[in-house]
Amino acid sequence: MVLTIDINSPPPYLTLNGNEHLPVVMSVATSDSSGGAGVEADIKTITAHKCYAMTCVVGLTAQTPSKVYSMHAVPKDFILKVLDSNLNDMRCDAIKTGALTKDAVDALSSKLKDLGETRPQLVVDPVLVATSGSSFNSEGLVEAIKEKLTPLATLVTPNLFECFELLGSQVEIKNIEDVYELAKKVSAVTGTPNVLVKGGHISWDDDNKKFITDVLYLSKEKKFVLYKGPRLNTTHTHGTGCTLASAIASNLARGYPLPQAVYGGIEYVQNGVAIGCSVCQPHVDKNGPINHVYAIEVPLETMVQDECFTAHEVVPKAPAHTIYDVVGSSLFKYLISHPKVKPHWESYVHHEFVKQIAQGTLKKEKFQFFIEQDYAYLLDYARVHCVAGSKAPSLDDVEKELVIVGSVRKEMAQHEMRLKQEFGVVSDSYFDKIQRGPALKAYSRYFNDVAKRGNWQELVSSLSPCLMGYGHALLNFRDQIVVEEGTVYREWCDTYLAEWYHDAMREGESLLDQIARTYPADQLETLVAIYADVCALETEFWTSALRYGQ
Amino acid sequence: MVLTIDINSPPPYLTLNGNEHLPVVMSVATSDSSGGAGVEADIKTITAHKCYAMTCVVGLTAQTPSKVYSMHAVPKDFILKVLDSNLNDMRCDAIKTGALTKDAVDALSSKLKDLGETRPQLVVDPVLVATSGSSFNSEGLVEAIKEKLTPLATLVTPNLFECFELLGSQVEIKNIEDVYELAKKVSAVTGTPNVLVKGGHISWDDDNKKFITDVLYLSKEKKFVLYKGPRLNTTHTHGTGCTLASAIASNLARGYPLPQAVYGGIEYVQNGVAIGCSVCQPHVDKNGPINHVYAIEVPLETMVQDECFTAHEVVPKAPAHTIYDVVGSSLFKYLISHPKVKPHWESYVHHEFVKQIAQGTLKKEKFQFFIEQDYAYLLDYARVHCVAGSKAPSLDDVEKELVIVGSVRKEMAQHEMRLKQEFGVVSDSYFDKIQRGPALKAYSRYFNDVAKRGNWQELVSSLSPCLMGYGHALLNFRDQIVVEEGTVYREWCDTYLAEWYHDAMREGESLLDQIARTYPADQLETLVAIYADVCALETEFWTSALRYGQ
Repeated sequence: MVLTIDINSPPPYLTLNGNEHLPVVMSVATSDSSGGAGVEADIKTITAHKCYAMTCVVGLTAQTPSKVYSMHAVPKDFILKVLDSNLNDMRCDAIKTGALTKDAVDALSSKLKDLGETRPQLVVDPVLVATSGSSFNSEGLVEAIKEKLTPLATLVTPNLFECFELLGSQVEIKNIEDVYELAKKVSAVTGTPNVLVKGGHISWDDDNKKFITDVLYLSKEKKFVLYKGPRLNTTHTHGTGCTLASAIASNLARGYPLPQAVYGGIEYVQNGVAIGCSVCQPHVDKNGPINHVYAIEVPLETMVQDECFTAHEVVPKAPAHTIYDVVGSSLFKYLISHPKVKPHWESYVHHEFVKQIAQGTLKKEKFQFFIEQDYAYLLDYARVHCVAGSKAPSLDDVEKELVIVGSVRKEMAQHEMRLKQEFGVVSDSYFDKIQRGPALKAYSRYFNDVAKRGNWQELVSSLSPCLMGYGHALLNFRDQIVVEEGTVYREWCDTYLAEWYHDAMREGESLLDQIARTYPADQLETLVAIYADVCALETEFWTSALRYGQ
Repeated sequence: MVLTIDINSPPPYLTLNGNEHLPVVMSVATSDSSGGAGVEADIKTITAHKCYAMTCVVGLTAQTPSKVYSMHAVPKDFILKVLDSNLNDMRCDAIKTGALTKDAVDALSSKLKDLGETRPQLVVDPVLVATSGSSFNSEGLVEAIKEKLTPLATLVTPNLFECFELLGSQVEIKNIEDVYELAKKVSAVTGTPNVLVKGGHISWDDDNKKFITDVLYLSKEKKFVLYKGPRLNTTHTHGTGCTLASAIASNLARGYPLPQAVYGGIEYVQNGVAIGCSVCQPHVDKNGPINHVYAIEVPLETMVQDECFTAHEVVPKAPAHTIYDVVGSSLFKYLISHPKVKPHWESYVHHEFVKQIAQGTLKKEKFQFFIEQDYAYLLDYARVHCVAGSKAPSLDDVEKELVIVGSVRKEMAQHEMRLKQEFGVVSDSYFDKIQRGPALKAYSRYFNDVAKRGNWQELVSSLSPCLMGYGHALLNFRDQIVVEEGTVYREWCDTYLAEWYHDAMREGESLLDQIARTYPADQLETLVAIYADVCALETEFWTSALRYGQ
């Protein structure tokens, strides 16, 4: 029996310009057979950044996240041959080093010196103390790195303990200023103009929230950039150091300035740690690698399943148990009374911002700021409804999303009017130039994320709190409205109490119920998390307006 | 100076389920320092398939696409330690082997035998003759592979010359049946139940079009699957073999059945070859590696640029030279008279299918097939307009897309009516069960691709030929319409001659002109290619209806 299958040609317009120019990054490091760290983590990271990875393997390890079982060093003459062939025959935009041997330091530094000013940018991750606790440190290695390699580097990325190794002595760290001092000293002792002191080993406190900081010192500009991130409660940190340096090298190869390259690298690592991956046997699963591929789409699934935008492909066929079996008659009521959502919903719909409008005590410039931010928000909101439409199962559902775009048009027109009548805005180009504040950015980024990874139901759920919350907030403060008719505050209150708005809310509530009948029961937590997140984003949006100018 | 930057937390709903379960694939192969083949290509491929890559490096090479400069074999005891630690501490769903040494064959086969029936699936790429011409073949290696390794494999993936090596003799290949025989013999001599004979070295002819075939032989089902793909004119083929076997192993690890896993692998390699990448110095650029990352999105660009769906981020700010400077008053007229578009446009708008409708000679079952396919198409078309809306620069532009969704509703309702009145369709569920033919699938997949990678202007261009072509085709055959009023054929003709339809065409033409003023002049070829492609897809859509039932 013979079955013939045609392979689809790639769309010719994609191949118009011939070979794609990919930024090239070479990893000079040791192989980690289990794939979580070392050269393997570097290749994964560089690939995930759409760069081209080359390697110079200076040593092999048989290791897993639990233990280094064996090592094998690669001879110096072979390392030199690899560096020669890669740097002679291939382009190279950036080099990232990881765990090195003295031979490797000698070979690389002499090769880079030969290249002179044409040498690629160099990011040195001085792997002297690994997360796993094992050290590849051999006698004289630190000295060799400091003498020969780091003076040629654009950036060196030690963690705290590696800073101490490089300095040859421990330093007490009591406050963030001590880290600044440390970074300066490392820059002096390594001869590297830029130093990133990784702060993963210290937790700082701020408003009762634990966070970690990475400090970038730019010696030429005499500037510190402090990256503040949440402290994640996980042991899946195998390979974080290698990954960060590779991500930064990739971003540099793409042409980003250093502070942005570091920002992107930290966020990539943080997402990889947060999402994690389960690839170890149970006896080592307490200490696993990070997830390098969290943002990658699976080619075959794209090809076989998403080849057309059909309903049964976008929305999984009716699951055996839907959340309707769990939540009963109203998904909306279930969500807002869920213990994980309720505090965020309550903060949102009883927000001081609305109270001050109702009572007429809100400062005008805060209201103007809010209207401007909301204007920019609404355009995003309309676009995300379009994305939801593109994922909707039937044309009826597509059209439901489009109806909402119509009412967004209405709200934006009102905002334009308010800004023109109340705040003296004259030029139409004013609206294109609105600067997005952090609360709006965070909210839009969240939408972007759900739009990219979420299905129709998840996207519809993320769009719901905005519609429902404004109506409920105004109902809650209805009795406290003292602002006079004809004022902009009163008119704003009346909008969300109007019959047409409450009709839209009823539509929105029934759309959630439709979702309840198609969404698998065992994934209910996902919708709960989305609803809680978005209520928190809404709250923050109003809070940022209240705080404006303070 | 201190600048503080907050790192965005990953959306909590993404991290709900803790560590993501990633399929694990181990590459047992030789390192290619230049990154295009070997372990490096394997890691890139496995990563691009959202699987977790582990390695067992059995040898190192200093090589580039032009030459192998040096080799370094890894000792057997170290290989054994790597296999032990990876298979004891880590999960492993599939193993892919590449260029091996005899030591590696011994180590891997004994380890796999120890595991017995619990051993992971094994895909053996018998790298005996590499694309670069160099051979890693050492004395006795072929025998060792045949004796010890391939009997444990799920699939072996030789090219023609490797088939000869495995058989120990050359076989003349005159027709495709000779390849079937070859595959059977390879299965017998290797003891592997499934054999993929890669056909990249032979071109076949069919309707004057060159194509290549890969033949999969499934010995248990006594079945051959023949994958027919276009012959691509390129020398960027370094690493194709490694990449194919890794892609297949990744798809198997994801749980796809073998024929689908092979399909996905071939398409991935073909796209990688077609898109290519420029990473070599000029003196070797004639023979480069394939592009493993063509489908990957860049994290930092996503973060920094797409963080909000704002106009200036989606549509690049007014380029210095737009295609308006080149095409003048009407982009539409420019496109349809462009030498690359014109033949496709002319075949489309003078199509025999329309002529037969106008003259009433088209067989009814062909018309029914067309209406059903077009019904399914229109839902996709509406969804792609939603995607275009989500990328549009202003709310006005968003709404232009939505207007079209309204007229799609009108056309779908007409199709439903036609099917019910003319073809006796009664059940509404009939419409959900329409089977998509190859022409529709190819068209929808093309839309999907532009929707994913294209910007607003490219997407709008891809949606234009459908709107414009139907109107022009009916104008062309207007004088030949002899079907009587009141018939479904006449009513169909009248639809695309109606005033409302020509209004929509005028809108569409002016939207193209708007695009001409925002799209960079040096990328005009992209819009030309898209227009030509989509006109060809439209032609094929009608041709497939004409051929229906034959």
